[in-house]
Amino acid sequence: MTGTAPLAGGTPAPFTADDYRVRMERAARSAADAGLAGLVVAPGPDMVWLTGYTPPADTERLTALVLVPGQQPVLVVPTLEAPDARKAAGAPGMSLRDWTDGVDPYAVAAGLVGGDGRFGISDNAWAMHLLGLQKVLPEACFASLTDALPMLRAVKDAAELELLAAAGAAADQAFEEIRKVPFAGRRESDIGRDLADLLLRFGHSQVDFTVVGSGPNGADPHHEVGDRVIQRGDMVVLDFGGLKDGYGSDTTRTVHVGEPTDEERRVHDIVRAAQEAGFRAVRPGVACQEVDRAARAVIDDAGYGEYFIHRTGHGIGVTTHEPPYMIEGEEQLLVPGMCFSVEPGIYLPGRFGVRIEDIVTVAEDGGRRLNNTTREMVIVD
Amino acid sequence: MTGTAPLAGGTPAPFTADDYRVRMERAARSAADAGLAGLVVAPGPDMVWLTGYTPPADTERLTALVLVPGQQPVLVVPTLEAPDARKAAGAPGMSLRDWTDGVDPYAVAAGLVGGDGRFGISDNAWAMHLLGLQKVLPEACFASLTDALPMLRAVKDAAELELLAAAGAAADQAFEEIRKVPFAGRRESDIGRDLADLLLRFGHSQVDFTVVGSGPNGADPHHEVGDRVIQRGDMVVLDFGGLKDGYGSDTTRTVHVGEPTDEERRVHDIVRAAQEAGFRAVRPGVACQEVDRAARAVIDDAGYGEYFIHRTGHGIGVTTHEPPYMIEGEEQLLVPGMCFSVEPGIYLPGRFGVRIEDIVTVAEDGGRRLNNTTREMVIVD
Repeated sequence: MTGTAPLAGGTPAPFTADDYRVRMERAARSAADAGLAGLVVAPGPDMVWLTGYTPPADTERLTALVLVPGQQPVLVVPTLEAPDARKAAGAPGMSLRDWTDGVDPYAVAAGLVGGDGRFGISDNAWAMHLLGLQKVLPEACFASLTDALPMLRAVKDAAELELLAAAGAAADQAFEEIRKVPFAGRRESDIGRDLADLLLRFGHSQVDFTVVGSGPNGADPHHEVGDRVIQRGDMVVLDFGGLKDGYGSDTTRTVHVGEPTDEERRVHDIVRAAQEAGFRAVRPGVACQEVDRAARAVIDDAGYGEYFIHRTGHGIGVTTHEPPYMIEGEEQLLVPGMCFSVEPGIYLPGRFGVRIEDIVTVAEDGGRRLNNTTREMVIVD
Repeated sequence: MTGTAPLAGGTPAPFTADDYRVRMERAARSAADAGLAGLVVAPGPDMVWLTGYTPPADTERLTALVLVPGQQPVLVVPTLEAPDARKAAGAPGMSLRDWTDGVDPYAVAAGLVGGDGRFGISDNAWAMHLLGLQKVLPEACFASLTDALPMLRAVKDAAELELLAAAGAAADQAFEEIRKVPFAGRRESDIGRDLADLLLRFGHSQVDFTVVGSGPNGADPHHEVGDRVIQRGDMVVLDFGGLKDGYGSDTTRTVHVGEPTDEERRVHDIVRAAQEAGFRAVRPGVACQEVDRAARAVIDDAGYGEYFIHRTGHGIGVTTHEPPYMIEGEEQLLVPGMCFSVEPGIYLPGRFGVRIEDIVTVAEDGGRRLNNTTREMVIVD
């Protein structure tokens, strides 16, 4: 998936209070190592990863996990939601500080973080809440977690990798089924619905996106599904994923309805070679941007460079879109346990597009694919 | 609904490019009147209300509508998403400024807003984006729209009121049906599913919440649905809503499975009287907090004050949770066209809860209910 990043949700991952305690300790330690005085964690992927807690909704009422190195983690939570928070799997590892309508929740949080220093705050924390904190903590300085601690959730442990592999395998099962269904004469939205049903059937709790870009729609990498009726002769980009047991899947295959032209074959071959080159660049100690460069070089060399209009990949975990990013300028080195997409594409405006995407994890000696369906062009009916 | 505020989504409301142009002009004028140099509007309810545009997802890639009084509105948008943005109903009233991966989108936005002054920013803009803007605009100062321009979307025009009334009527239809289904022996989640199906059947495009709080679960105002099997003798709080044609519904009725006890009747009567008192307090020129006080006084006087643990109401529009808030300390005066919930409750921990909620709009001579099912206690099977 090239663009979206829904909040984590659905069935929580099967981790214990101890798992969450270890993560909170690790996060606090990483914060200290990075020179941060603490972390302010908002509802969403950071919070679900650190505590297992997802509030009923993300609202103007402040919910925030405050992590200060050397102190017990504290979850600031509206009183109304305290019963939910107490049920979170990570609750035993933190104390709860609830506040009632009428109380200033920022003062509550400020009392926990202290007066000054540099704090990391979740990327997706509400601006309203950041402004509230900045007001009561004029001496403090804030940085987004992506800037301050980009690799907080990037290196997955064995249990997480197993969950990501299972999500990938389920997405692969969905592809093996969708390639059997009729395409010609049906709408993109019909195929999208089929894909969503398949993801759910193979164990996803939540479908985050089902891109079906047929013919010229495939040339818009951000097209989702439309009413277009798929024709014989169409290229169709299928990009789909969601959460299974709290961890994400995200894979793309480009299929063809009936026999492709020589040009379509050639473009598909170039993208496949680019994807392979990106994948082969993956190993510990290589900078993220090298993965992007490796994939891009193949497309550039084939003369299609101007039609590869997005970065090569993004991390995946409790969300389908997170650091590390495989993009020019990202000098972060790959570390075993990182997990991200490799998804080059070529988009010929008004004509067709091709994208091929696997989730790849970094092992000691190179990359491992978590998607394993064929990357050859599949012909559908 | 006492707590949640999902982003607007689903089917867009049926407004024209001119409607959005008028809203953008009005917002820019209000900003100028409030001494603001401009507005930075994030994806979500503000953006959908001003432009009709909802990006595929709210991500680390900046999408922002920049409104500066006296200038053409500009939507800053990732190049990938520009084709979607161009299709928005409000697109003719703004220009698009797209940016590609690798470009600093904050510098793009900064070039549009200028160097200093006070800017309003959507409450739910990502902290990451606010920090990015603060960095490139060190002389600028930001305030959340709820602080800077709380009434931006609060006063609904005739077309909006019609849509809100239609959403309320659909929710009422759902209640008329749900009261006929069997409750005893079924799980809360079964009733929740029934409610969701009914909302969709009566024209909602999106269900945002279905609270089914039976017996002791009703005493947690934030409980959603659980696995508890509903028993004869249970009070059951039903709080449900979502979006229909882009505008929200949100209503609560508390039903009883079989004959209630005297105490259950008494508590229900008190909440009904409190709801009535809150409703009767509604008229132009009254402060929001007076609505809260009127409802609360009834519950206080009956000796249950400590069990009414949330504010009395919240605004509703393109989201089910927005200003104005009916809460102690809110001195904002009611204006014809405002639309909000009046939803007092009594929550007896470990035993049961009662909440009654109508959406109410402010007319010239008082309040008008947009929910019109009985507020008497309904006995279900």
